[in-house]
Amino acid sequence: MAIGRETIENMLKLSNPKWKTFLTRVEPNRLTTRGYSQEDIIGNISFSEMVYLLIKGEIPPRNESKMLEAILISFCDHGVTPPSTQAARLMASTGSPMHACVSGGLLAFGKHHAGAIEQTMKTIQEGVKRSEGDLDRVARELVNESLENGNMIPGFGHRYHAEDPRAPKIIELARKYECSGMHTELALTIESILLEKKGIRMNIDGANAGILSDMDFDWSIGTGIFMIGRLPAIISHVHEEKTREAPFRKIFKIDEIFYDGVDDRKIIKKC
Amino acid sequence: MAIGRETIENMLKLSNPKWKTFLTRVEPNRLTTRGYSQEDIIGNISFSEMVYLLIKGEIPPRNESKMLEAILISFCDHGVTPPSTQAARLMASTGSPMHACVSGGLLAFGKHHAGAIEQTMKTIQEGVKRSEGDLDRVARELVNESLENGNMIPGFGHRYHAEDPRAPKIIELARKYECSGMHTELALTIESILLEKKGIRMNIDGANAGILSDMDFDWSIGTGIFMIGRLPAIISHVHEEKTREAPFRKIFKIDEIFYDGVDDRKIIKKC
Amino acid sequence: MAIGRETIENMLKLSNPKWKTFLTRVEPNRLTTRGYSQEDIIGNISFSEMVYLLIKGEIPPRNESKMLEAILISFCDHGVTPPSTQAARLMASTGSPMHACVSGGLLAFGKHHAGAIEQTMKTIQEGVKRSEGDLDRVARELVNESLENGNMIPGFGHRYHAEDPRAPKIIELARKYECSGMHTELALTIESILLEKKGIRMNIDGANAGILSDMDFDWSIGTGIFMIGRLPAIISHVHEEKTREAPFRKIFKIDEIFYDGVDDRKIIKKC
Amino acid sequence: MAIGRETIENMLKLSNPKWKTFLTRVEPNRLTTRGYSQEDIIGNISFSEMVYLLIKGEIPPRNESKMLEAILISFCDHGVTPPSTQAARLMASTGSPMHACVSGGLLAFGKHHAGAIEQTMKTIQEGVKRSEGDLDRVARELVNESLENGNMIPGFGHRYHAEDPRAPKIIELARKYECSGMHTELALTIESILLEKKGIRMNIDGANAGILSDMDFDWSIGTGIFMIGRLPAIISHVHEEKTREAPFRKIFKIDEIFYDGVDDRKIIKKC
Repeated sequence: MAIGRETIENMLKLSNPKWKTFLTRVEPNRLTTRGYSQEDIIGNISFSEMVYLLIKGEIPPRNESKMLEAILISFCDHGVTPPSTQAARLMASTGSPMHACVSGGLLAFGKHHAGAIEQTMKTIQEGVKRSEGDLDRVARELVNESLENGNMIPGFGHRYHAEDPRAPKIIELARKYECSGMHTELALTIESILLEKKGIRMNIDGANAGILSDMDFDWSIGTGIFMIGRLPAIISHVHEEKTREAPFRKIFKIDEIFYDGVDDRKIIKKC
Repeated sequence: MAIGRETIENMLKLSNPKWKTFLTRVEPNRLTTRGYSQEDIIGNISFSEMVYLLIKGEIPPRNESKMLEAILISFCDHGVTPPSTQAARLMASTGSPMHACVSGGLLAFGKHHAGAIEQTMKTIQEGVKRSEGDLDRVARELVNESLENGNMIPGFGHRYHAEDPRAPKIIELARKYECSGMHTELALTIESILLEKKGIRMNIDGANAGILSDMDFDWSIGTGIFMIGRLPAIISHVHEEKTREAPFRKIFKIDEIFYDGVDDRKIIKKC
Repeated sequence: MAIGRETIENMLKLSNPKWKTFLTRVEPNRLTTRGYSQEDIIGNISFSEMVYLLIKGEIPPRNESKMLEAILISFCDHGVTPPSTQAARLMASTGSPMHACVSGGLLAFGKHHAGAIEQTMKTIQEGVKRSEGDLDRVARELVNESLENGNMIPGFGHRYHAEDPRAPKIIELARKYECSGMHTELALTIESILLEKKGIRMNIDGANAGILSDMDFDWSIGTGIFMIGRLPAIISHVHEEKTREAPFRKIFKIDEIFYDGVDDRKIIKKC
Repeated sequence: MAIGRETIENMLKLSNPKWKTFLTRVEPNRLTTRGYSQEDIIGNISFSEMVYLLIKGEIPPRNESKMLEAILISFCDHGVTPPSTQAARLMASTGSPMHACVSGGLLAFGKHHAGAIEQTMKTIQEGVKRSEGDLDRVARELVNESLENGNMIPGFGHRYHAEDPRAPKIIELARKYECSGMHTELALTIESILLEKKGIRMNIDGANAGILSDMDFDWSIGTGIFMIGRLPAIISHVHEEKTREAPFRKIFKIDEIFYDGVDDRKIIKKC
């Protein structure tokens, strides 16, 4: 047969790729991410610029890069109070390797925890869309709806802080870096209504949800941004548990576990 | 002070348990699960009875225990076609330990994969509830709705099988063990309509969703049952990859990955 | 060109499979696992026979199938004391979906927890190999070594039970089902030495490690067997947390978390 | 009783904390990380300084902060070739949520993949310790040992690049930022021997292992640093799969999966 194997493979390969990506081109001795060679990127952009470049395809203007850096850092750590950190440390205590413990920590990022930021971003992005410029009306609708349903709007209120110290700081930076717009405004309007009615303030998720939305991040990437910011702490907590605590320690005493099921049943032999 | 530490601890502990469970009581030298001592359980009930006991709190009648055993086995394996199995083997190939690979496999049980059974159970359970006995009407509504939206009803059709060989077998067993009722009937009615209109049959998820619903399992436990049935295969696949294949092998050739992003950009030095 | 695309694809495909497996053949409308059609398997073998078939390639004799079933059930649950169960429930509390919570639970199966059974199996299997029939000598060596290093031999001693109630029961069944041999004997010999010297008994991992080794399971599959046995309980615990407890509840009070780091530092502005 | 509940709780709480941490103090309306209030940190340090602060407890000098930033970015992405990225995209394709897909991707960071950097760091750190200044001798020993065992030293050679373009760039920056020392020197010495003997060069793991060791990072934190650098890409790949590809697509064709097990067996009825 006249057609060589390589020719045939070349014919087939382009028509049926297993994977397509616009993120990074891999060639022998060459790596190109979002169009930039990695040698050009390494050492020349900041980590937050790298994050922005990967997610949005562009190196952001200076102000937005500083803003994103501050947002990532605002998620840095909340001690051992979050279930994600507790879960990661429980795993570390069993002798699981670092990468498994960190993965496990991230699995606790459900909708009531780190997932909250996505819901806030979604709510705010939809709110601005339907506002026709009247943010006050939308804010009142959202607050009333949440009060009627008995659900707090995610992004407002915090179970440890009456005033989350990170929120005003990040809002201040958003002004400084000129990254706030209608979404941040809507979040602040909701806060002022909630503060009056219920004494509840914006938390860091609410503030970041507004700013990230004004920076044109889609809501579906919100938990991703949170994960990037929190990861170094989860790694540090796993390391701390592994190096400072006895392995497989009893974190709970047996009398902190309460059995409230049935008792004293007997199997009538069946097998 | 007259009050001993132990007294104080006893006073405090009952009022604030960290965990409550009705599953298993743990006492020194004694383990009681759903009211039965574990020495009594071990060797005296079958694995499917154990599953049923844990989830529903009772050892089931013989017929239901045989039925659940058949359902678990019907989920046993689908070779290397499911993304969960592929993901677990990819991880095994990197040298991750068994428990991490198995965990990773389960993470691929999203709504389009193992998660489908829950959606089918939910659809069928809600369908029977609103049927007022008229399953035919509900079946037609569900089919029409799905055809209009262009979404297949989960539990029907299979990407590898025009006729999923497991479905008729498990339906036959449901008749034999007298475990089929209105939910299975609704699933079969949907199938007959879909078969006529589109040549599409029930798959194993659809069949099991009907039977499990007739056995009074809540839809939210569906993916759990699937996981129990599939776990032995995921473990076996991880073991196979680890023992029969070269570590960190290239499963994809580089030309099966297609880059369709931008090219040839240069950073204007900023740092 | 005279050669059709299908021909070319057929030429290429056999020479370069992405995946190889001896577990299940997938063909349109046909599934064959370890050589048996799945219609033939479903309803005709027990769950423990399925597990054995997948892992070892054969349907076991009746006695071994009953033995394996008892072993799986002996791992069934230990309430909310294991870190794996605690981690899975922590995740459930954050609103993570079932499959993510279960995965997370398994990530806590490190070497000090479920991973212990693999180490016990390895120790016992190597011990029998080098014993030349003199189990007593090997048992003494293993005990002395562990006492010198200050490490307990995994499989002996339990942090909640002086006498793990599951161990004697499973050993009794191993006698009944004629599944005990030199490995179980070695485990029992170690126990009798440890009991005399330190008052320490075999736990369920130690007992099962001996029996599984006598049933010719490789040590590397030990954690896998544990996972199969424990999975139904993890699913039940996740379900219990999701249905009986408030979402995102504070499992720990803030004063149960102790900060012992530095304080009162100030950043000298750098950015 | 004269002693109030609060007093008793205060008496007990300090003596038995569930968790200890030196990372972050959580108080109402106040968060202090490594001694700095978070309001002071946010907006005032860079992301790599935050990483350094969490892991090592200090804000690093400017040079080291720039070095760590470049190292994090050097891990940014390798397209769809790594099993971790493939696994995360497989999960995304099944409809698993973002946080579960990202966790799953990290589970593929086994010892042959991202875990390699830890082994390289360990090898290099032990090598420098036993070198007594004679790096050349240690480098020769390490190379000879690896050639005899047929194992490549991790950190050298790359399955896609004869010359990993990231390695010389990061070494150049280590010179510029004065972050290279004996560990980097040992890595370079190994490279020069391997290059002469086998034509093999250092990859990015080898280069970073040397530099991170010179910056006094313990080898056990290596995979952690890799994870921080790679996470934004995994998130971006999951987002890409979810937004640009059909859900539950067949990534492999059925004829790319090869069954090489037994066939045509029949169950002799047992149940």
